[in-house]
Amino acid sequence: MTTRVGIVGFGEAGAAIGAGLAEQGVPVTAYDLRFDGPDGRALRAAADRSGVAVAADIGSLASRAEVVLCLVTSAAAVAVAEALAPQLRPDHLVADLNSTSPELVRRVFDVIRPTGAAFVDVAVMAAVPPHRHRVPMLASGPGAARLATLDIGLQVEVLDGDPGAASAVKLLRSLLIKGLEALLLEFAVAAVPLGGADRVLQSIKGTLPTDWKELADYLLGRTARHGRRRSAELAQVAEMLRDVGVEPWLADAGARRLRWAAEHGLETRFRDRDPGSYQEVVAALRAAAAGADRSTPGAQ
Amino acid sequence: MTTRVGIVGFGEAGAAIGAGLAEQGVPVTAYDLRFDGPDGRALRAAADRSGVAVAADIGSLASRAEVVLCLVTSAAAVAVAEALAPQLRPDHLVADLNSTSPELVRRVFDVIRPTGAAFVDVAVMAAVPPHRHRVPMLASGPGAARLATLDIGLQVEVLDGDPGAASAVKLLRSLLIKGLEALLLEFAVAAVPLGGADRVLQSIKGTLPTDWKELADYLLGRTARHGRRRSAELAQVAEMLRDVGVEPWLADAGARRLRWAAEHGLETRFRDRDPGSYQEVVAALRAAAAGADRSTPGAQ
Repeated sequence: MTTRVGIVGFGEAGAAIGAGLAEQGVPVTAYDLRFDGPDGRALRAAADRSGVAVAADIGSLASRAEVVLCLVTSAAAVAVAEALAPQLRPDHLVADLNSTSPELVRRVFDVIRPTGAAFVDVAVMAAVPPHRHRVPMLASGPGAARLATLDIGLQVEVLDGDPGAASAVKLLRSLLIKGLEALLLEFAVAAVPLGGADRVLQSIKGTLPTDWKELADYLLGRTARHGRRRSAELAQVAEMLRDVGVEPWLADAGARRLRWAAEHGLETRFRDRDPGSYQEVVAALRAAAAGADRSTPGAQ
Repeated sequence: MTTRVGIVGFGEAGAAIGAGLAEQGVPVTAYDLRFDGPDGRALRAAADRSGVAVAADIGSLASRAEVVLCLVTSAAAVAVAEALAPQLRPDHLVADLNSTSPELVRRVFDVIRPTGAAFVDVAVMAAVPPHRHRVPMLASGPGAARLATLDIGLQVEVLDGDPGAASAVKLLRSLLIKGLEALLLEFAVAAVPLGGADRVLQSIKGTLPTDWKELADYLLGRTARHGRRRSAELAQVAEMLRDVGVEPWLADAGARRLRWAAEHGLETRFRDRDPGSYQEVVAALRAAAAGADRSTPGAQ
């Protein structure tokens, strides 16, 4: 029997995964609160075009799927789990793809567990749209092995551990990537006006053999386009570190640095295109800062 | 005529440079306040063994050298310049190798400039003892070109800019290297107890093609052996960033993280050997923390 998949939360990621599964013949049903809102008609039409059926409510979705993928926002995760729980049977598999904090995943698990349904914490390890349902996933919890063996084309790596373990790995990865991004940003806003930024990036190659200039271009490009979201991710990392008794000095500082960049209007400035270089990001920050802010680069 | 070199400050770096120069036949005279202190006899004997002459005072040193290399601590830099200034002639070249803050270098320059002597800011870009006088130097200021063309075996790269420019480049480099070190440390103290530290380091290779595990071993090994000094360097970076109007959020956080490590007794624990891995550094921190500190890794 073909596995039937339900998708709760039909945003960018949910729609991309749904379309990918439907395209290879998996029966997919979606539900989103917004189906009944002002954009409902357009959203339902988009689902229809990609071969995804639309459920009238979350109960209908649960009755039409054995595997339920939750792709709602972190803020809605527990409420959605509470709405879903009464509809679940022990043969259901519920995968939480969107709760990035291990603590939140455990709260969702606490809601699902009494139903007897299997639960799995899924950390999505790359951007969904280009990969659709084949995006690399890291899974932990009682339902992880079952998710990995479903014959529907998912790319699942099973991680030993309870729900929360996969999300923890993802956040720890974010600490390094986004922390480095914030560090390079702080470096660049000081070094570009002082002169010698490229020289320093070049000189570091001796210690860390990576193309640091290319890395600065890439990571500050991510800041320019998605600084606010990436700052929020570092703030979640900080929360997790506090939960395990580590004061998140770097994580907090990094979140602050990326939020500072976002508050200087970078995402508006680079809405439609990536910046050409890290120097262009610094120039945009300096232009926006205009002397009002104590941390204005180059201001005395 | 052979260039005669004077060395003010006969600590580890000064002694190594002096010995290297003397060995290849350069006439070298040294002066250190400690020559007249309790360890004076041993210090003077060491100078003698390496072929370095000992000056009775700073005036005698200035009369016996055209090139004066200052290798005193940052705290003593201005006082030494003030003692040296009355002894200088316009044909002297004074190189400041030890003032790491650009602001401090400029204060030293202000003391030397009225004498007519040429002044050069030198950033030493590697550990001195293994390289001795051939350690890579970055030089800026009016005397930079002259320092680079002296025929005494120095490895000098001239940087455009006033005194302070070379020190700024060195501090900016420290921001990246030691900031990354602090970031990896914060990562490791959370990730090792949570599990998955190696997995995350491995997964980052896709984004940043460096051996991150090796890098963590190396940088946390530096923290273990020299955390206090490296923390102080990041604190100097933070000061420089404030001077140019950039709030040093990452630099401050990094200085705090490395100081925190030093305060957990790492330098005593690893006095005689490098730790074998970053996990060993984390284990030592956890053993030392013993629950008293709010930021104890793994404590709730």
